[in-house]
Amino acid sequence: MEERKPIDVEQAIHKIMERTKQGETEMVSIDEAMGRYLAEDVVADHPVPSFDRSSFDGFAIIAEDTTNASFQEPVTCKVVGRIGAGDVTDTIVQKGEAIRIMTGAQMPKGANAIVALEIAKEEQINDETWITVNRPIEKGTNVAFIGEDIQKDVVIVHKGRQIAAGELSILATFGYAKVKVYKRPIIGVFVTGTELLSVDEPLVPGKIRNSNSYMLLGQIASVGAIPKYYGILPDDYELCYTSVVQALEEVDYLVTTGGASVGDFDFVQDILHELQATVLFNKVAMRPGSVTTVATWKEKWIFGLSGNPAACYVGFELFARPVLKTALGAEMVHLPRSKAILEHDITMGNPFARFTRAKAEIRGSDIFVSSVGRDKSDIISALVEANAFLFIPARTKSISKGEEVTILWLDQGVERAIE
Amino acid sequence: MEERKPIDVEQAIHKIMERTKQGETEMVSIDEAMGRYLAEDVVADHPVPSFDRSSFDGFAIIAEDTTNASFQEPVTCKVVGRIGAGDVTDTIVQKGEAIRIMTGAQMPKGANAIVALEIAKEEQINDETWITVNRPIEKGTNVAFIGEDIQKDVVIVHKGRQIAAGELSILATFGYAKVKVYKRPIIGVFVTGTELLSVDEPLVPGKIRNSNSYMLLGQIASVGAIPKYYGILPDDYELCYTSVVQALEEVDYLVTTGGASVGDFDFVQDILHELQATVLFNKVAMRPGSVTTVATWKEKWIFGLSGNPAACYVGFELFARPVLKTALGAEMVHLPRSKAILEHDITMGNPFARFTRAKAEIRGSDIFVSSVGRDKSDIISALVEANAFLFIPARTKSISKGEEVTILWLDQGVERAIE
Repeated sequence: MEERKPIDVEQAIHKIMERTKQGETEMVSIDEAMGRYLAEDVVADHPVPSFDRSSFDGFAIIAEDTTNASFQEPVTCKVVGRIGAGDVTDTIVQKGEAIRIMTGAQMPKGANAIVALEIAKEEQINDETWITVNRPIEKGTNVAFIGEDIQKDVVIVHKGRQIAAGELSILATFGYAKVKVYKRPIIGVFVTGTELLSVDEPLVPGKIRNSNSYMLLGQIASVGAIPKYYGILPDDYELCYTSVVQALEEVDYLVTTGGASVGDFDFVQDILHELQATVLFNKVAMRPGSVTTVATWKEKWIFGLSGNPAACYVGFELFARPVLKTALGAEMVHLPRSKAILEHDITMGNPFARFTRAKAEIRGSDIFVSSVGRDKSDIISALVEANAFLFIPARTKSISKGEEVTILWLDQGVERAIE
Repeated sequence: MEERKPIDVEQAIHKIMERTKQGETEMVSIDEAMGRYLAEDVVADHPVPSFDRSSFDGFAIIAEDTTNASFQEPVTCKVVGRIGAGDVTDTIVQKGEAIRIMTGAQMPKGANAIVALEIAKEEQINDETWITVNRPIEKGTNVAFIGEDIQKDVVIVHKGRQIAAGELSILATFGYAKVKVYKRPIIGVFVTGTELLSVDEPLVPGKIRNSNSYMLLGQIASVGAIPKYYGILPDDYELCYTSVVQALEEVDYLVTTGGASVGDFDFVQDILHELQATVLFNKVAMRPGSVTTVATWKEKWIFGLSGNPAACYVGFELFARPVLKTALGAEMVHLPRSKAILEHDITMGNPFARFTRAKAEIRGSDIFVSSVGRDKSDIISALVEANAFLFIPARTKSISKGEEVTILWLDQGVERAIE
C-alpha cells in the first residue's frame, strides 16, 4: 500500500473549496419551498403597502377638520360610508365627513388620517351616524403609506438564503407561486466492513451493529440533501468495484464509511486508483478522522470516511458538508464558527489539529465550552452530548481555562446550549 | 362586542402551560426517526465495546514479552494468525507469539496489548512471518476494553430528546430498529379576510396576497408538527362556524389568522362563544400581537392570531409553539432564551411588553443584539432580517446601549448570527 501523506486541515478544506460548485436549479411550488435555498433574488413586484391603508380600525377623516378639536369643544363628523378590508369605495370624504374603515383597508379619497375606534365617540342621531373627536388628529395618523414598508423593485431576500417561515411570507406577498431553488443533491452511502450486523440482528462475538450509515443518513438530511443508502459493500474487490461504479452512475456524491482505516480489507483506495480518480488527499493531520479520503472523478465526488463513528462524523461535517452546501447554493457552507470561553485546562499530547466533541453553553450573553467525555475517537456516547466541536489548532501544547477558543456549532447547537 | 381585557404575557403563557400535555406515542422505523422526539429512554442493551477490541491495526501480543525490548536489543515474535474486523479466532497467543489484527477486531485470548503496525517491523523468514518490537509495550496498549465507552443498561439518550444524527447512531448501535416517538400533531390553519388574494393572483386595489398562511405552515413545520391548510374562511358567519366545527373534528389544534383585530368581520370570538369554548385570554399586554386569542374546547386548542404578519408570527411562537412542542414530547418547549448585549439605546413609548424582531450577532464569545428595522408591527421586511426577538419587559422606559437584554432565538438563529 502507498504511504499516505497527511495534509493540514486548512489545506484539505482549501483543496475541496476550489473544486466545489453550485448545483442545478429547479422551479418548485411555494408549498414545497420550505428549507430549500433560493436560486434567485426575491424582488418586490409592488410596494408594500401597495395602497395607502389604515393601520387601525377607526374612521377616515380629514385631519384639518380636527385642528381646533378639544375636550371642551369637540368636533363632529358625519359617517358617510364604510370600508371593509379588501373593499374600495368611490366615496370621497368631504369636509365634516368620516368613513368607517377596517384595519388594512384602502384609504378613501379625500381623507388623510384615521381616528381610532376607541377615540371616536360614535352616536346615532336620527338615521345618521356621527362621531365626536375631542382632540386634534395629525395628518397621516394611523395611515400606512404606499411603499412605507417595502419599495417596489427592491431585493427583499437574497439568493442563497434558506427558506424559512419569514421567507415564505415574503414569497407569498410578492406572488412567488413558484420559486427558483437549487436541486437537492443525492448522496449515496456505502458501508464497508465484514464486522457489521444490521440494526435488527442480535449481537455476536467480534461484531458490531452498523450505526454509521444511520448517522450519515441523518447528517445528509440535516444538510438538506437526499441520502440514498446502498448497503454494506461486499467483501470482494471486484464486486466492490462494480457496486461503486454503478452507484456513481446514479449519484454525484458518494460517501463510504468503515474500512477506511489502514486495515487490509480497505478497497476504497484501490477502487479510486483503478478509476484514476483525482485523490485530493487521503490523510489529514487531525484527530479524529485522520484517515479521511476525498477524491473527485469526472464531475463526481467520493468521500472515504473512517469507520470510527466520531471520525466519520467529523469527516462528513468538515469535508462533505461544504461540498453539498455549495451545491445547494447556501450562503454559509461550513458549520457556523464562533469563539467560546474554555471551561477547563487542556494539555495536548500530539501535534495534530483536534476537533473535540464539546458542549457549548450560553450563560448570560457569553458562550462557554467544555470538551465532552474522554478524548478517544471511538467513544460514541459523546456524540449525543456534544453540540459543538472544540477546535484545537495543530501544534497547540496547552490552553488554559478562561482562554477564548474556536468552536464549530453543530445542528441544534443553541437549543442545546441553553438549559 | 365584549370588551377585551389584556393579561400579561407571563400570565398568558402560564395559563397555557398549565393545560398543555404530551401527545400519543407511536413506534416508527429508525429510518423514519430523524427529527422526531424520543418517547422512551434509549438504554444500552450491551456494553460498548461488547468485547475487548483492538483500537489500531497491528499485532496482538503479550505485553510482558516486550518488557526488556530496546532499540539495541529488540524482541521478536512469531505471527501465528490473523484476525479481520468481525472475525474471531480460537488461537491463543502464547509467549513469543503475535497475531495480526485489524482495527475493531476482537482481541485473541492470551494477548493483552496491541503493537501498532507502524511500530512493529515485519519480516518474512522462510515461510514464517516475524515482527520485531524495539520498545516495551505496556499492558492494555491500544486495547479498548469491554464497557469502556458505555456500560450495559445505562441510559444513553433521555426521553424528550430530538433525534439527530448522533442519536441515530446510538439507536442503531443498541438495536433500536423501531423507536418509540411522539406522534406528530396535526394543526389546521384557517385564514380570514375578504381582502386576501391567493399567491398566484394579480394585485388589485385594496387587496393583498395571503402570506400569513404560508408563514404559519412554515412555522408549524419548523416545530415538527404537520400543517393542514383549510383555506380562507367564508365571509358568512354560519358557513364560518360550520367550517371551524368540521375542522375541529379532524384536528386537535386550529390556528386562525387575520380578522383577529377588532374589526367588524371577525367571527372567531363569536364562534368561540357559540362553542362555549374556554377562552384562556383574548388580549395580551404586548406588542405586536396584543389581539391574540387562545381557547380550549374539549381536548382541542384554538389559537386566534392577529392578521398582522409580525403579530401572527409572534403569537404563534409564544403561544402555539409550547403547546405543540409539549404534545411532541420535546425537552425544551419554548424558543431558546439567552441574554445579549444591546447595541443601541431604546426608549419605549408605552407600557406594554415588546417582542421586537432583532438581529443577534455572535462576535468573539459574546452575543450582541440590535432591533431590526422600524418598530411597527406591519413591517414584513423585518421578518427575514430577524433571527431573534428582543424582549422588552412591560413598563420599561429605556434601555441603554451596552446593557444586557433578554433575547429569544428563532430557528437558524446561530447560523444567521455568524457572518
